[in-house]
Amino acid sequence: MKTIKNPGASSGPHKRGEVLNLRHSARSLHGNPLGDPVERDLYCYVPADYATSQARYPVIYFLTGFTGTGRSMLNFDPFVESMDARLDRLIGSGAMAPSICVLPDCFTRLGGSQYMNSAATGQYEDYLINEIVPLVDEKLRTKPGRDHRGVTGKSSGGYGAMRLAMRKPDVFAAFGTHAGDAYFAYCYLPDFPKFVKGIERHGGVEKFYQHFAALPKKTHEAMDVLNILAMAACYSPDLTRPLGIDLPVHVPSGEIRGEVWKRWEANDPVHMVREHASALQSMKAIFVDAGLRDEFNLQFGARIFCSRLDEIGVKYTHEEFDDTHMSINYRYDRSFVELAKVLA
Amino acid sequence: MKTIKNPGASSGPHKRGEVLNLRHSARSLHGNPLGDPVERDLYCYVPADYATSQARYPVIYFLTGFTGTGRSMLNFDPFVESMDARLDRLIGSGAMAPSICVLPDCFTRLGGSQYMNSAATGQYEDYLINEIVPLVDEKLRTKPGRDHRGVTGKSSGGYGAMRLAMRKPDVFAAFGTHAGDAYFAYCYLPDFPKFVKGIERHGGVEKFYQHFAALPKKTHEAMDVLNILAMAACYSPDLTRPLGIDLPVHVPSGEIRGEVWKRWEANDPVHMVREHASALQSMKAIFVDAGLRDEFNLQFGARIFCSRLDEIGVKYTHEEFDDTHMSINYRYDRSFVELAKVLA
Amino acid sequence: MKTIKNPGASSGPHKRGEVLNLRHSARSLHGNPLGDPVERDLYCYVPADYATSQARYPVIYFLTGFTGTGRSMLNFDPFVESMDARLDRLIGSGAMAPSICVLPDCFTRLGGSQYMNSAATGQYEDYLINEIVPLVDEKLRTKPGRDHRGVTGKSSGGYGAMRLAMRKPDVFAAFGTHAGDAYFAYCYLPDFPKFVKGIERHGGVEKFYQHFAALPKKTHEAMDVLNILAMAACYSPDLTRPLGIDLPVHVPSGEIRGEVWKRWEANDPVHMVREHASALQSMKAIFVDAGLRDEFNLQFGARIFCSRLDEIGVKYTHEEFDDTHMSINYRYDRSFVELAKVLA
Amino acid sequence: MKTIKNPGASSGPHKRGEVLNLRHSARSLHGNPLGDPVERDLYCYVPADYATSQARYPVIYFLTGFTGTGRSMLNFDPFVESMDARLDRLIGSGAMAPSICVLPDCFTRLGGSQYMNSAATGQYEDYLINEIVPLVDEKLRTKPGRDHRGVTGKSSGGYGAMRLAMRKPDVFAAFGTHAGDAYFAYCYLPDFPKFVKGIERHGGVEKFYQHFAALPKKTHEAMDVLNILAMAACYSPDLTRPLGIDLPVHVPSGEIRGEVWKRWEANDPVHMVREHASALQSMKAIFVDAGLRDEFNLQFGARIFCSRLDEIGVKYTHEEFDDTHMSINYRYDRSFVELAKVLA
Repeated sequence: MKTIKNPGASSGPHKRGEVLNLRHSARSLHGNPLGDPVERDLYCYVPADYATSQARYPVIYFLTGFTGTGRSMLNFDPFVESMDARLDRLIGSGAMAPSICVLPDCFTRLGGSQYMNSAATGQYEDYLINEIVPLVDEKLRTKPGRDHRGVTGKSSGGYGAMRLAMRKPDVFAAFGTHAGDAYFAYCYLPDFPKFVKGIERHGGVEKFYQHFAALPKKTHEAMDVLNILAMAACYSPDLTRPLGIDLPVHVPSGEIRGEVWKRWEANDPVHMVREHASALQSMKAIFVDAGLRDEFNLQFGARIFCSRLDEIGVKYTHEEFDDTHMSINYRYDRSFVELAKVLA
Repeated sequence: MKTIKNPGASSGPHKRGEVLNLRHSARSLHGNPLGDPVERDLYCYVPADYATSQARYPVIYFLTGFTGTGRSMLNFDPFVESMDARLDRLIGSGAMAPSICVLPDCFTRLGGSQYMNSAATGQYEDYLINEIVPLVDEKLRTKPGRDHRGVTGKSSGGYGAMRLAMRKPDVFAAFGTHAGDAYFAYCYLPDFPKFVKGIERHGGVEKFYQHFAALPKKTHEAMDVLNILAMAACYSPDLTRPLGIDLPVHVPSGEIRGEVWKRWEANDPVHMVREHASALQSMKAIFVDAGLRDEFNLQFGARIFCSRLDEIGVKYTHEEFDDTHMSINYRYDRSFVELAKVLA
Repeated sequence: MKTIKNPGASSGPHKRGEVLNLRHSARSLHGNPLGDPVERDLYCYVPADYATSQARYPVIYFLTGFTGTGRSMLNFDPFVESMDARLDRLIGSGAMAPSICVLPDCFTRLGGSQYMNSAATGQYEDYLINEIVPLVDEKLRTKPGRDHRGVTGKSSGGYGAMRLAMRKPDVFAAFGTHAGDAYFAYCYLPDFPKFVKGIERHGGVEKFYQHFAALPKKTHEAMDVLNILAMAACYSPDLTRPLGIDLPVHVPSGEIRGEVWKRWEANDPVHMVREHASALQSMKAIFVDAGLRDEFNLQFGARIFCSRLDEIGVKYTHEEFDDTHMSINYRYDRSFVELAKVLA
Repeated sequence: MKTIKNPGASSGPHKRGEVLNLRHSARSLHGNPLGDPVERDLYCYVPADYATSQARYPVIYFLTGFTGTGRSMLNFDPFVESMDARLDRLIGSGAMAPSICVLPDCFTRLGGSQYMNSAATGQYEDYLINEIVPLVDEKLRTKPGRDHRGVTGKSSGGYGAMRLAMRKPDVFAAFGTHAGDAYFAYCYLPDFPKFVKGIERHGGVEKFYQHFAALPKKTHEAMDVLNILAMAACYSPDLTRPLGIDLPVHVPSGEIRGEVWKRWEANDPVHMVREHASALQSMKAIFVDAGLRDEFNLQFGARIFCSRLDEIGVKYTHEEFDDTHMSINYRYDRSFVELAKVLA
């Protein structure tokens, strides 16, 4: 078990926890179609008193957004409180019950997995649920069981949290979503034209991907195309197609392909609520937010998701804040605090 | 009959036509719900030899885009060829058969009418078809009859041209559309979130409109909101609603209202093609273009519209160019030339 | 004497003035180096009662900004009050003493003249002072003499107003400047890098200009380059150089050429104040404004100009408003009202 | 001596070096005026064969840009080659002679130090030259002496490299600068208006800084203000002023203060060349680059700096590339290779 200390990161007056790396081989990812690594890091924050106490701790899984990895969540920026310093402060100040925080790595060469099983990317839900969760319970002094386990995250990580909680209420009893992907007509569809332009320019998805992979610098333009391509890999895999991906649009006309769009919508959290009503009703806490200037319009996804929860009589905390989609780490405090409260 | 000469506008070496104003009272607009003026200008360009010859001329109706009027199409910018100088050059150089060009004014307080009849805005299709066309034929030496009459325009004017040609093949035998509104999922839907924000901020459509009307300067932000509001007034009027407009979205959740969206789609040119197949098959010329960087993604609307024409076996000229949606007057040459060729 | 009526422009309940065109041949512009037209329009607004009264009126010269002409100031936008409707309202409501408003055309192929004499562009100060002013006094029922004559304008027109009032206090007794060019280190220098890139890309000023002239659409990028080129033509002409222009920068290194920059600074209003102290002290009204988000930082030019006026004990009205540099016509009310007050 | 391995970072087929942390207490920073930490990390990359060989290695100091620290240069982004993986590849492929690479931390609360001594920020040049260099030579198997020592960096780090090489030719025999700060009239002056707005809005530099420090998210707007404030702290400290900083502009007029600007210019690399001609003539390699779309116009700073080197007969490698100022890590290969060639 490797240990990383962040000697440069300030936790102010608070005692500092530790970040452990439960590096392991991911069976679920063996033979994954993108050839992504099977050896994976698994960074886990344990609170300051972990080493000296015998206590068991609730566990919060924090899922990173698109293009993030477990490790990148630990990056250092002197003007931004780091993940571990944030937890040190929240726990040290008493705002949050002492908890373990796990930072899974479900990255793929396409930028992410949406924490789903997909024939085009790999079995990332299986990996998280069947391997990471048990590994954490085995290696760390967790309070095991769904009642002490929550999941939260930002953007695609918020999506993963909504999705996993709805599908695996036996594993998680609470979830949070910060600007999580929802209401695909607003968060993805407006980027379809850019996507078509990018794919057309490069002569197809395979040539686009080769171009992307070779770029010494991934431009915003290329990232926008990659984003839709990755979502298609997650929501509409089709092994008979190039890269195993059925596109939601015709190239080059741009026309939306109704059948594929339906597959996407089936994965839209706002459309998943009714089917997963009992899972949602079993949650001990739900935290939802988004910024009022979110570039992906996710404040509307959040509002619509919450309106669906209203329809099935589920309580939640819903917050909006005056910010964009980017660099909203300071918001993580909110789901950490709300989840830890019910999981302790 | 008033005459405007543009003394400052250069037509280079070419003889200069004249712009006449057939100002009149528009019966179809009496009692229009927005209280827009009934007295309307009707600027008509006649070629240089009109005054001295006895000839009759084909007529091309040029429809302005959203927020434009007949008069604003004659505005002077020393770095942009004006509409009359453009026609002088095209005709004077022999590129275009001598034609009359009519610049209808179908402006409303909401920014435009989409050249439609709507309970929320007024009877602008009736006005154009039943009043303007006969008036032009009465007052000017036109070659009357659909075979000598075409319609073209830009943006909302391109939309109007597509729409009117499909619905009134007895009136027009050719049409052009420069970056005309089409495929509403790409040209309008991506602005729905902005619209919801704007309406929410001001507390409803009526308060938004009062705010808008009072603005000494119409900001881009306000214009984006107005645009969707005006489209709703055209595509989904409902006199039981504020301003007589049924919105395509819930405010404030942003959720798209399926029934209203269907009303919009019924007015989308790409969805109108099949119903109007025989009208389209009767056209002597169809010209379609859009820029490859159109901010409203109208190059995709154009492609999809053309793919629908393919399905019904209709020929057309389709061009794309490396530019945005804005300031593309230089493209007008193309539809003028193509239409004049078949209408002479 | 030609007359233009704006039949579409609303003046609300107010009586409408007229716009006359004193078209003439400009002696001062004969043989101008750019080959710009010598025949010039001169649009003049006269108040509603001009035709029926025998009264004489004070005169306000309104100078348009870069790329504008006299005629373009009369363009019609249904959402923007036009110049003539604005004057109708101000006069009709009693806010402004009845005045003649003259709209000179000092446009050049480079976009403007800064209302200066320059070996590279032409004798535009001479033209305005020695020809336009006498012509107006001859043809219209003006109250002649400096005490009844003011000059105002926007952007380059505000610059022209400051400059002309400082240099010709015998001609003008009051001036206004809306976001007028001032403090060149902030309004021009930040665009020098763009300028160098543009000139370098096209292989010199002459090739750039040929490229520019041939562009069917003048892009923002090209306009930014033209702007600095035109300013150099005005501030640092040198007939031994290409196009008669000495550039303020080395191409391609971008290094500022100190001697040329000094010539520019000599024309900067903030540096002209001391030399023209007595002229400024003789003004009956000075109005200065700029927006707090001016893209050319002209609010700072305005502040510094006013601080120089303080140093020489001159009174002025200085206003700031929450807007950008663009579409600030609604601000013109302020200088019209302030100037008319002292000129009547 | 702590060791960090980057288990997630790919070096492809190449053997992986190690990153050591020579954490220490910085005497030169004791009592620094901003109260910044005295305990500092010092991350040092050593090549793959360091552990097993007895060899000594040349040393390249890589200086991070504004807002960066030594640690942040080691951040992980799955789509960007990390600093250590870059060096593994360059060395492993034979493109670069095996070298130690040192990542100094000269961060301050204002975002950086420009690697200078300043009464307002601290003695960062002393720290780097008198403490870091000897510490590295003491703790690691370096080839000591200026002939085996080079310095390079990006942005403010490129500035630091130019500055330190010019001032300390006894310490460094080669330097590189990627988009290094130079020609302040283009890289800083255009941001002065934003700076004035920011300082004015918050009521002075102290209140601005308090505001900034408290921001949970540092906005772009705030960072732009901080940048100029930090530069003033470095280039024009004055202990009689708030925060010990003499501003280059009057607030709120924005007028440039000539005496302070002269202090800035004395620190501009393009103005330092002549004074440091013999130091520059003693360099074994100089590498200069910048992107052709650099947002801070640093390609012009690079060109002018090189033109100054021409004047004193100094050879250099100057490259330009089609990119902006941001995310240009892939360019670091160039200075690493060029410096290692002459330092080995």
